[in-house]
Amino acid sequence: MTNLAQGLRLRDDFPGVGDWHYLDSAATAQKPQAVIDAIARAYGADYATVHRGVYERSANMTLAYEAARRKVAQFIGAASDAEIIYVRGATEGINLVAHSWAGTQLKAGDRILLSTLEHHSNIVPWQIVAEQVGAQIDVVPLTQDGCIDLDAMAAMITPAHKMVALAHVSNVLGSVLDCRRAADITHGVGAKILIDGCQAVPRLDVDMAALDCDFYVFSAHKLYGPTGIGVLWARQELLEKMPPYQGGGSMIDKVTFEKTSYAPAPTRFEAGTPHITGVVGLSAAIDYVQAIGLDAIHAHECALVAKARSALEDLNSVRLFGPDTSAGILSFEVQGVHPHDVGTILDEGGVAIRAGHHCAQPLMNHLGVEATARASFGLYSDDSDVDALVQGLARVRKIFG
Amino acid sequence: MTNLAQGLRLRDDFPGVGDWHYLDSAATAQKPQAVIDAIARAYGADYATVHRGVYERSANMTLAYEAARRKVAQFIGAASDAEIIYVRGATEGINLVAHSWAGTQLKAGDRILLSTLEHHSNIVPWQIVAEQVGAQIDVVPLTQDGCIDLDAMAAMITPAHKMVALAHVSNVLGSVLDCRRAADITHGVGAKILIDGCQAVPRLDVDMAALDCDFYVFSAHKLYGPTGIGVLWARQELLEKMPPYQGGGSMIDKVTFEKTSYAPAPTRFEAGTPHITGVVGLSAAIDYVQAIGLDAIHAHECALVAKARSALEDLNSVRLFGPDTSAGILSFEVQGVHPHDVGTILDEGGVAIRAGHHCAQPLMNHLGVEATARASFGLYSDDSDVDALVQGLARVRKIFG
Repeated sequence: MTNLAQGLRLRDDFPGVGDWHYLDSAATAQKPQAVIDAIARAYGADYATVHRGVYERSANMTLAYEAARRKVAQFIGAASDAEIIYVRGATEGINLVAHSWAGTQLKAGDRILLSTLEHHSNIVPWQIVAEQVGAQIDVVPLTQDGCIDLDAMAAMITPAHKMVALAHVSNVLGSVLDCRRAADITHGVGAKILIDGCQAVPRLDVDMAALDCDFYVFSAHKLYGPTGIGVLWARQELLEKMPPYQGGGSMIDKVTFEKTSYAPAPTRFEAGTPHITGVVGLSAAIDYVQAIGLDAIHAHECALVAKARSALEDLNSVRLFGPDTSAGILSFEVQGVHPHDVGTILDEGGVAIRAGHHCAQPLMNHLGVEATARASFGLYSDDSDVDALVQGLARVRKIFG
Repeated sequence: MTNLAQGLRLRDDFPGVGDWHYLDSAATAQKPQAVIDAIARAYGADYATVHRGVYERSANMTLAYEAARRKVAQFIGAASDAEIIYVRGATEGINLVAHSWAGTQLKAGDRILLSTLEHHSNIVPWQIVAEQVGAQIDVVPLTQDGCIDLDAMAAMITPAHKMVALAHVSNVLGSVLDCRRAADITHGVGAKILIDGCQAVPRLDVDMAALDCDFYVFSAHKLYGPTGIGVLWARQELLEKMPPYQGGGSMIDKVTFEKTSYAPAPTRFEAGTPHITGVVGLSAAIDYVQAIGLDAIHAHECALVAKARSALEDLNSVRLFGPDTSAGILSFEVQGVHPHDVGTILDEGGVAIRAGHHCAQPLMNHLGVEATARASFGLYSDDSDVDALVQGLARVRKIFG
């Protein structure tokens, strides 16, 4: 597994990669030229607003915008494109559900279940709504190797739990959740489950029907797509009961000062002129990823992680976090060296990693560290990136003795 | 005024314009190549996340992202870049204020003052918060020629009014509000005023200090910039009292499951990975507009509107709405012809207008119509667009007898 003869060779598609060793794809992915070109075209000769124009170019842009919604639905195995809400990103998707579903369905004494490894975006919105309605938050612990402990979850969940929110893939540890089992446990007490799919959608073939969750969110910019756009998927029967999140143009049926009535989902949740070119770019990103295939991408990243884990284990004084089978993401620390110093020295050698709490301070507390260093891979990553990382860490050890 | 010898000649900067007669700039503006190139570069060789990376490219992108905030502050005369919140667009900006300011400051019995000509985005968020807190909405009427009647406002405002929200420039009529007088009237009873600047910022030189309002919002895509990004400006002392709108990464100080503390403004209001390239594109759009100068743009658009009003008045059976001095926007109806039919026939001649209620149904009720036709101008518009509009309307009259 130290060589990757069959690996993907796609660096040249990405003008942002070149000979740089970009190992921060879990923060945000670089964009293929095909996505950049689609966005530039959408801002140029194709540019028009959607849903409102009576002229041809606007009608064409509206067709593209809604075709993208069908593409997203097919990409994640949604039952209908009416279940696809365009949001700014996963963070907004979670806030929307916390506000419009939990904010109206939960009451004092209800409980919300999260896990120790959640990203702040899957903690803070629930804290805000819990405080509003008087609900309590419980936390599912992790297994020894950094997976959400579903046995513990099954033991601790009660009928007072109305909402469960878990990461599909940990942004720090790369550990993969058995979503279906988590959903089954959740539904066993009649609760709903939201899955934060930010780190899963770029790496795993996700299928809403198979996962059987109730809400699912992801961000386009981690899927080789544009910034400022993401997706909330929700079961249609849940969306129907949810009040609007933001008021404005497009989301209404009829407005008078006396009374306003709202459009059905997904329109009800998309107030204002949308991020039109973001949707066009997301569509192009899905085309790009589907042409390669998520199975191939996942296998490629797993091979790189395995190679990196093996190489880092051979280094003295490097501590690895997370399971051996982590999906594309590898956190570690170099003992005695602050992760920021590790990152800075690696940067001097053209290797970009992330150092910090990764918006997961509770997990840092659990790991007993302030921060970790994190190398995360994308479909354009290759052996040269792993080699450069290992060489850079050798330099770190040399500098810090 | 029928010729425009001194007019701007900028069509060639806009790949989306060409020989098309695009008269829907009030819906969304076409983009100069400079903006498209800036966005493409930001997605390519410059691409990285902001605020988190320990490597050089991310540090550079963070510098660009925060430099853009200072540029926005300077562009609108804000006291500090800490008063600039990046939002998805004006709609989200208004929702943020309605939620975080009005939702926490207003109580049952308080009153909110809007006007008859407001866009749905400046009506529905206030209806939502009014219902939540038990406040009432009052409506300032319009003058005969379609301006917000500030005399009437002065007569009807009371100390029970805590919030006033008005459009700087009407998206239907092009009428311009005397913001300073509206602010003075508002402050006279101790209320706060939000100005919807969507149609003003692309046309008028706005200055927060001179306007003396409390909140101001606009969208980048109407300012020749990207979709999915906009600005909320608010006085710093107001922002300091406002709770977060969305929870997530970046907006926190410290997160534990027991207690989370938040960052100061503007960070507190910017949860999650932001629309990085949107901010870069907005910055490029401001550069482009400032190089031309808003006084020149406004004069150019006023000349085109004057020419169009004059030509349309000469046509039989065309009714013009709004004041003679409307800023860049001209609504009309061709008697006996539905505005959608007008728009469709114009489209066949390469003229793109908007037909509909323009997200301003209460104003349509006031005007006694279901919809209007609307021609709106941008800095790239020229005499040929007005001529094509007039020729197209002659064709409409011919077809409909």
